[in-house]
Amino acid sequence: MAQTIPVSPLALPMPELGVVRGIRLGAIAAGIRYKGRTDLVLAEMAPGTTVAGVFTKSKCPGAPVDWCRAILSKGEARALVVNAGNANVFTGQAGRKTCEATAEATARLADCSAENVYLASTGVIGEILPAERITSALPALHTALSETGWEDAARGIMTTDTFPKAAVRKATIKGTEVIIQGIAKGSGMIAPDMATMLAFVATDAKLPAPVLQALLSAGIQKTFNCITVDSDTSTSDMVLLFATGAAQNPDITATTDALADPELADFRTALNAVLHDLALLVIRDGEGITKLMSIKVSGAVSDQSAWRVAMAIGNSPLVKTAVAGEDANWGRVVMAVGKCGEPADRDTLSVSIGGVCIARNGTVVDGYDETPVVAHMKGQEIDIAVDLGLGAGTAQAWSCDLTHGYIDINGSYRS
Amino acid sequence: MAQTIPVSPLALPMPELGVVRGIRLGAIAAGIRYKGRTDLVLAEMAPGTTVAGVFTKSKCPGAPVDWCRAILSKGEARALVVNAGNANVFTGQAGRKTCEATAEATARLADCSAENVYLASTGVIGEILPAERITSALPALHTALSETGWEDAARGIMTTDTFPKAAVRKATIKGTEVIIQGIAKGSGMIAPDMATMLAFVATDAKLPAPVLQALLSAGIQKTFNCITVDSDTSTSDMVLLFATGAAQNPDITATTDALADPELADFRTALNAVLHDLALLVIRDGEGITKLMSIKVSGAVSDQSAWRVAMAIGNSPLVKTAVAGEDANWGRVVMAVGKCGEPADRDTLSVSIGGVCIARNGTVVDGYDETPVVAHMKGQEIDIAVDLGLGAGTAQAWSCDLTHGYIDINGSYRS
Repeated sequence: MAQTIPVSPLALPMPELGVVRGIRLGAIAAGIRYKGRTDLVLAEMAPGTTVAGVFTKSKCPGAPVDWCRAILSKGEARALVVNAGNANVFTGQAGRKTCEATAEATARLADCSAENVYLASTGVIGEILPAERITSALPALHTALSETGWEDAARGIMTTDTFPKAAVRKATIKGTEVIIQGIAKGSGMIAPDMATMLAFVATDAKLPAPVLQALLSAGIQKTFNCITVDSDTSTSDMVLLFATGAAQNPDITATTDALADPELADFRTALNAVLHDLALLVIRDGEGITKLMSIKVSGAVSDQSAWRVAMAIGNSPLVKTAVAGEDANWGRVVMAVGKCGEPADRDTLSVSIGGVCIARNGTVVDGYDETPVVAHMKGQEIDIAVDLGLGAGTAQAWSCDLTHGYIDINGSYRS
Repeated sequence: MAQTIPVSPLALPMPELGVVRGIRLGAIAAGIRYKGRTDLVLAEMAPGTTVAGVFTKSKCPGAPVDWCRAILSKGEARALVVNAGNANVFTGQAGRKTCEATAEATARLADCSAENVYLASTGVIGEILPAERITSALPALHTALSETGWEDAARGIMTTDTFPKAAVRKATIKGTEVIIQGIAKGSGMIAPDMATMLAFVATDAKLPAPVLQALLSAGIQKTFNCITVDSDTSTSDMVLLFATGAAQNPDITATTDALADPELADFRTALNAVLHDLALLVIRDGEGITKLMSIKVSGAVSDQSAWRVAMAIGNSPLVKTAVAGEDANWGRVVMAVGKCGEPADRDTLSVSIGGVCIARNGTVVDGYDETPVVAHMKGQEIDIAVDLGLGAGTAQAWSCDLTHGYIDINGSYRS
């Protein structure tokens, strides 16, 4: 169980968090699965808050994912309810009823429509999530909401996470300073495909929903979609981005090209930095992690191809166990490149670890001295770089090693 | 190292092997990597022996794979040389020279062309394989070849294998009895894609090379291509099938439809049984295995789609660790189906474990009693069945659990 897992050696302390005007948060112990810890989080947003979301591509999504997808086109969010310990996945009609009951109870408290209430759940798959546990805890939770409740919220959404995860940046839009702040959870079943486990980001910027969606959809491509712990994609993956508008920046029109508009350049950079920070925090809490792997691929026929190669290396059990064993076994990197189905040519391939070029043009470099690479493998952050020698495509991905800790955690998760 | 790994609890004893007239085998300790064990195998085949082969789809194949692919069109095999401990992969020009020197030295001993000498290597990737170690050991090895050398050969090709692997069947072609006998090695880096680590099968049947190739290419689809230990595809995968013709069965023409010819029906069945046995033996020696997983998928839109779903379940680290932990965590099976990208509908999906239907139509079955499933999970052979409820496509795949043993073996393989 989560309680007995030691804190990840790659954990980072919480950054100094700010306030996002227009959003208040809190957490409470609702006793849904865990004892003696918070497991239910509520956030209430000011009227007019816009929202964007990306969700798992799983063909077996959880009921809350279905719920959020269905209401996203409304474009306005007034509340968010998240529970930990039960994913409300593969729960049929009962799961849908729990979503409806939760949204309706929250809507009464927040004086809004149920279609403005966003829901997220993670935890065990296939067990009924009783709505009463949530709805009976909501009134007390609502009373205690606070603009400074971010760390409580970050802790309340944890499952097998060993530390709470948050990130913050500031940016300027047309001369007005805005804040972007987010939290995330996730530790295993991490191979996001359009989103990761759960991440919630809020800003006080005033931005139309289509602009927000364009920025989020682009932003996750090089952040959440480039991390993997175990190649397993969750049924509950979700990243939501809320913009309360409280900063009262000058209007950005809904029809602007959000990815090119120079007025949004600073905001884009800051948002991408928050998404990057949160994604890396998830990997730093990868189940059983002792080493963080960064994988850079260049020379691919396209960026997409480079991404697939990087993820194949990051997902390879043999590469991950070699990193765990501090073994500079670059041959397994070659194996992973070879197996992934992307264009590659053994005889133009080069492999570097820790900045040392080990193999080039289909063979080991002349006089290869393993000493500096062995020293690099003993560190906590392992850099693997592959150049395919075929084109200009590049990508970077992040993964973690595969250790006894992963087996310990996942051989008895439900017990 | 291989020497310290306990024998797999799912090991099977060697079957009683026969003689395949026209082929003599043997093994010797050439000191290529291991101490105090055989690591070099030679087989010599009678003139006129036909050959078929399937090879890894890896884009970074080993030099011996390139060598065999290049000579396969000749259709005749007179010798096979296999070494264990060094894969001769990513060794550039030196690797090609080692292949040439090995084939030429063998050709002199067997009085044939170098283009009739098949080569295979498995072991560490990226280290130069010195040809002299092999060529200096070949003369003594050649002198000692024997029709009964099969078990020695099965032991001589092992790397991290914990037991030798062989299978045998008899069949009748046009009234003439023939034998089909084979050996295999493989334990990790097992997710064959057109072939597995190494398997060598021989028959005394007289069959043209194109017929042999058609039978082998079809036979591996439901055997070697349906097993996975760790989703990692080797750079050295190879299955070779030799037919010495010593049984003198009546001629089968090269132009026959090998997959439909009724005269070959019994041979097809027996060959597929040998391939099945060898593939399952590889899984039974999966690195760190404590439980064998059989995964049956039905109701898919096609057989190919069913195969992809079955392999996604068999490759999921979370399914594999749940099996290791004897946890009937069927939600992870749902997750694996959902993530794999194949057509699936949560609301028509059903999942069974150990013959007990647990979930149907998007939710757990009424009154689900976990007791018999928990009992099944404690066994050594775990049956998982998924029906997608979409079409008539079916597949079966085999995998093993993911345990501390896998981490132990692969965190220090090169040391």
